[in-house]
Amino acid sequence: MTERRHDRAFVRTFFTSPTAIEGEEDSAKMLRRAAQLRGMQAPDVWVPDNEDATAPSMRDEGAQNIIDVVSEHGADFPGEIHPRMVWHRDSPGTRYQGFQHMLKIADPEKGAVEHIDGFVIPEVGGIDDWKKADEFFTIVENEYGLEEGSLAMSVIIESGQAELAMRKLRDEMGKPENNLERMFLLVDGEVDYTKDMRAITPTGELPPWPELRHNTSRGASAAGCIAVDGPYDDIRDVEGYHERMTENQAKGMLGIWSLTPGQVVEANTSPLPPKTGSWLLDVDGEQVELESEDGVEVYDGDRMSLEASDGGYELRVGSDTRTLDEDELHEELLGLTSYVPSMDDIVDSMEEFEAAKEAGRGAIAMERSATLRIGGTEFDISTDRMWDEATYQAAMTPISLFQDVYENRPDQHEELEERYSTDVVERAMEVGL
Amino acid sequence: MTERRHDRAFVRTFFTSPTAIEGEEDSAKMLRRAAQLRGMQAPDVWVPDNEDATAPSMRDEGAQNIIDVVSEHGADFPGEIHPRMVWHRDSPGTRYQGFQHMLKIADPEKGAVEHIDGFVIPEVGGIDDWKKADEFFTIVENEYGLEEGSLAMSVIIESGQAELAMRKLRDEMGKPENNLERMFLLVDGEVDYTKDMRAITPTGELPPWPELRHNTSRGASAAGCIAVDGPYDDIRDVEGYHERMTENQAKGMLGIWSLTPGQVVEANTSPLPPKTGSWLLDVDGEQVELESEDGVEVYDGDRMSLEASDGGYELRVGSDTRTLDEDELHEELLGLTSYVPSMDDIVDSMEEFEAAKEAGRGAIAMERSATLRIGGTEFDISTDRMWDEATYQAAMTPISLFQDVYENRPDQHEELEERYSTDVVERAMEVGL
Amino acid sequence: MTERRHDRAFVRTFFTSPTAIEGEEDSAKMLRRAAQLRGMQAPDVWVPDNEDATAPSMRDEGAQNIIDVVSEHGADFPGEIHPRMVWHRDSPGTRYQGFQHMLKIADPEKGAVEHIDGFVIPEVGGIDDWKKADEFFTIVENEYGLEEGSLAMSVIIESGQAELAMRKLRDEMGKPENNLERMFLLVDGEVDYTKDMRAITPTGELPPWPELRHNTSRGASAAGCIAVDGPYDDIRDVEGYHERMTENQAKGMLGIWSLTPGQVVEANTSPLPPKTGSWLLDVDGEQVELESEDGVEVYDGDRMSLEASDGGYELRVGSDTRTLDEDELHEELLGLTSYVPSMDDIVDSMEEFEAAKEAGRGAIAMERSATLRIGGTEFDISTDRMWDEATYQAAMTPISLFQDVYENRPDQHEELEERYSTDVVERAMEVGL
Repeated sequence: MTERRHDRAFVRTFFTSPTAIEGEEDSAKMLRRAAQLRGMQAPDVWVPDNEDATAPSMRDEGAQNIIDVVSEHGADFPGEIHPRMVWHRDSPGTRYQGFQHMLKIADPEKGAVEHIDGFVIPEVGGIDDWKKADEFFTIVENEYGLEEGSLAMSVIIESGQAELAMRKLRDEMGKPENNLERMFLLVDGEVDYTKDMRAITPTGELPPWPELRHNTSRGASAAGCIAVDGPYDDIRDVEGYHERMTENQAKGMLGIWSLTPGQVVEANTSPLPPKTGSWLLDVDGEQVELESEDGVEVYDGDRMSLEASDGGYELRVGSDTRTLDEDELHEELLGLTSYVPSMDDIVDSMEEFEAAKEAGRGAIAMERSATLRIGGTEFDISTDRMWDEATYQAAMTPISLFQDVYENRPDQHEELEERYSTDVVERAMEVGL
Repeated sequence: MTERRHDRAFVRTFFTSPTAIEGEEDSAKMLRRAAQLRGMQAPDVWVPDNEDATAPSMRDEGAQNIIDVVSEHGADFPGEIHPRMVWHRDSPGTRYQGFQHMLKIADPEKGAVEHIDGFVIPEVGGIDDWKKADEFFTIVENEYGLEEGSLAMSVIIESGQAELAMRKLRDEMGKPENNLERMFLLVDGEVDYTKDMRAITPTGELPPWPELRHNTSRGASAAGCIAVDGPYDDIRDVEGYHERMTENQAKGMLGIWSLTPGQVVEANTSPLPPKTGSWLLDVDGEQVELESEDGVEVYDGDRMSLEASDGGYELRVGSDTRTLDEDELHEELLGLTSYVPSMDDIVDSMEEFEAAKEAGRGAIAMERSATLRIGGTEFDISTDRMWDEATYQAAMTPISLFQDVYENRPDQHEELEERYSTDVVERAMEVGL
Repeated sequence: MTERRHDRAFVRTFFTSPTAIEGEEDSAKMLRRAAQLRGMQAPDVWVPDNEDATAPSMRDEGAQNIIDVVSEHGADFPGEIHPRMVWHRDSPGTRYQGFQHMLKIADPEKGAVEHIDGFVIPEVGGIDDWKKADEFFTIVENEYGLEEGSLAMSVIIESGQAELAMRKLRDEMGKPENNLERMFLLVDGEVDYTKDMRAITPTGELPPWPELRHNTSRGASAAGCIAVDGPYDDIRDVEGYHERMTENQAKGMLGIWSLTPGQVVEANTSPLPPKTGSWLLDVDGEQVELESEDGVEVYDGDRMSLEASDGGYELRVGSDTRTLDEDELHEELLGLTSYVPSMDDIVDSMEEFEAAKEAGRGAIAMERSATLRIGGTEFDISTDRMWDEATYQAAMTPISLFQDVYENRPDQHEELEERYSTDVVERAMEVGL
């Protein structure tokens, strides 16, 4: 059986901070600031980054800064803390440096390790390279009397080799010579992956790498780990960040890297169900969110229009106009619309299905209806969707995510209750148990 | 050498029926009805479904119903019969229950097993989990004096683990400790897969999972099995079902789940070549099928127009108009058009190539020409396509499929001959032999 | 550490020629012609093709023709020479024939092998089938006193089995029983792959197989090999060929098959940075290259327009018009534009970053600005892009490719210097060293 062995079953956000900045009075400034984030601005996993975000010459100081800041602020930090060490599949010197930093940071006398949940290892190669890192974790744990496997290990997938290694993880975990059960996050690192794959795009932007993201999500699923996407560089492009997250969520990759507290807020929120439901209309191939006005869902663009004609309707999409009778129009509009349920809607449906199941019924029809207004003309649509055990289980994912967040992030309770209302939050915490 | 070890080399349709319905006078009603399907309404593989389609409390009765209905109707059923048992990678109790049902159903004294071709095992995990199921098949066969490996095993791929397992199948088959050569269908189960991968979409619809479908098709190819896509829930959306099948076919996944006899008809027909050929025109990025009127292929939409001007032509696409001379227009229209060959066309081309090969030629040019009418203006196009051995072999796939269908499904002869004419059917049965 | 073990780290072009044509006075005519290609018309890898391009009855003569033409012209040929032998995973007879041809061609007394860099093996199956071919290479090398592993082996991936085998290559290389370190190119062969996967498309055109191409690129990355895409049949469709190459490059697959010297020119040029930079504008979802007129980047289509209004601007895209103030417009246009840097631009940026690094700075902002003219209205945009070590490394790929080409292909120096200017070429040869 594939077990999840960590406190968190879901991780929405992976937020990195440089550990030491040259030329600042306090080189740990960014660490100190990040350590004090709370609520939606605080990530599920905070990563003091002693690798790429920190200049090579500052990394010894960075290791010391991690100790100083985490021992001071770690107890109060609401998320998990997983510093990133240096590592490289092709450089024994870099690996040894990473090991030394781990040894230093994990020394219980320094007061940081009790607040540290694990370490992040970048630039891993094949599975045997992962085992080298795991062995260092084991030595560190043994040296300081920590329980074997108690420090989680997360890796950055930024080479073809590492992508291939993920498929072996499940087979290697549990062998007596390693403690790979410590594996926690599989995080894509698309910048270095692009370099390793030697990919080229005309503008220099990153390729989308859909197969990598699928394989990471699958690898996580098969080994009881959690999949996280890499950084989204254009921090001003909030819409683009959300589109990427929506794409990732459809792949089962519910977490993403965040580079700023603003991105943390977006990424903490994105996989949660919306506060209010909304209707989508497929207008000539594009999904348009309808505006809700007094219970009527309104499309007022000019690419689609609807008019009543004698005995029927004329529906125009772009330059194509069709005459339809009432039933045909109903069928057509059902095909063109879809509903994005709110948290409240999802909880309602789940409660309804649970009650039906208790009463011995295995499948029930959930009705969904709306009044649409297209080009001024109103029309009612209504449809049933069958819910069975499988529908119920699939709908459970966002709820389980919510429950995981609510249990592990008391600092977000206020914002979550403000978003959804206390009543909805309470009911959401009870379905599926 | 990768062998195919089963009677069918192709499976178009995988049709499930609940085995026992609560509250009906005859709980086997649906089974009885399905068992009497014939012709295009009858699937290549019929799956009395003792798992998700049947309530947990009804599954023992379901196993008995399978025995009753299959022993009565199995001899006359035109497709293969592969009941689905309960199974779960994470539940030994469920696995044991599945084993008990198999033992019960396969008892030769009950009269059903002689009509049963195999069993379908859902919710498998890693390859060692597949071996557990295989071992139960072997025990059942041994218990009843059936030949080892004579019961086919099909699995539902509905977890990341199972997706990863497919790549190992080829290496594991043929080891003396198992009989995995019995493997027949690899069937995607996207609802539970989505749950296992913890994917979320805003509307709750299933993600498209293109990589899963590729990997299933590839796994089938490498192990001599047959790839089948999962259920398409929206049974009223015939167009969507066809689009999904066309997509799957381009991945080498020629079979699909069917939930109703209506879907069976569509899915039995979809991978077969069309009765008549047709021309497609790329109109501003969209493929439009031209209407054939007295041998002229007509586009009468308003997004493209063609007019003769002095010494040339004006071709308008959307709001872009270009002036082209005759040769340029010919070249342009060749680029914008493509031809969907009919069964008759394919057989013609193959016969022509076979004759050329017999005459010692390795490659020949096949001409294809048409008169187009765009916005009232007619224009003739003509092009050659080189056929060599590889083209011929690739064109063979739909013909091999047809031949497999024709040989194994006498109940569909009448409908096939009506569709294609007796002459075309006879010639199609002879090419490539 | 993943090593590259061959002279070339990049291969842009894989050009096949039939080895013997029936009915010609000189059956080696095509070989002789290809052997004399030079400059951009000459491929990085030339493949005298004794398999599919040559009729089965002509293949013994083809092997002799390879000896004759390569011993005469091989010394002067500017690219590498890798003849393709016959092979099939399912046919021992074909494999033995391929072995015999290799033995014949590699005989040092015949004078060809000193100019031959390796052989291409088509139709391979699982990794053990690759080992059979490798063993024949070893025997040939041993027989003639050549160094073990000195003949490179390239394979055509044209089955699901072979696709799966690529993931094992890294694990199998270096085992004492094989010399798989000789592996050089992984070349997709989509025609036969489509047949093996039994895929069907309505018009008979090849499916795009994006996952196969990803997996080939990843397999190459993990094993220090080079990924090459298969043939693009429609040799008149230059635009389509370029689109395919751009897609491939974003996957890290920088090489492609070429069927004609014209395709070789396109494919040799495509992965190199352009001579001049250009701006792209996203017009309603389509990337349009702006025309540069006296330093102004001009969009003069009718799907987007820009007009100054009192205190702001009106930006129309299609039929949607928005009123924006100057800052909003700047932000909007930054989002809609992107820049395709020239070789000169890339070298500039890299030099600037190298200087900054020398001065102890780990990240610098690179400014990019332009004057746009949309519908007659001009507007200036300007943006900074942060460059750090990772950006620098990723930008290195096209430069490394260029350096590899320049070092290995003196016959292309003149054309490259004409394209970029001597100054840019010289600077490009010095960055990153």
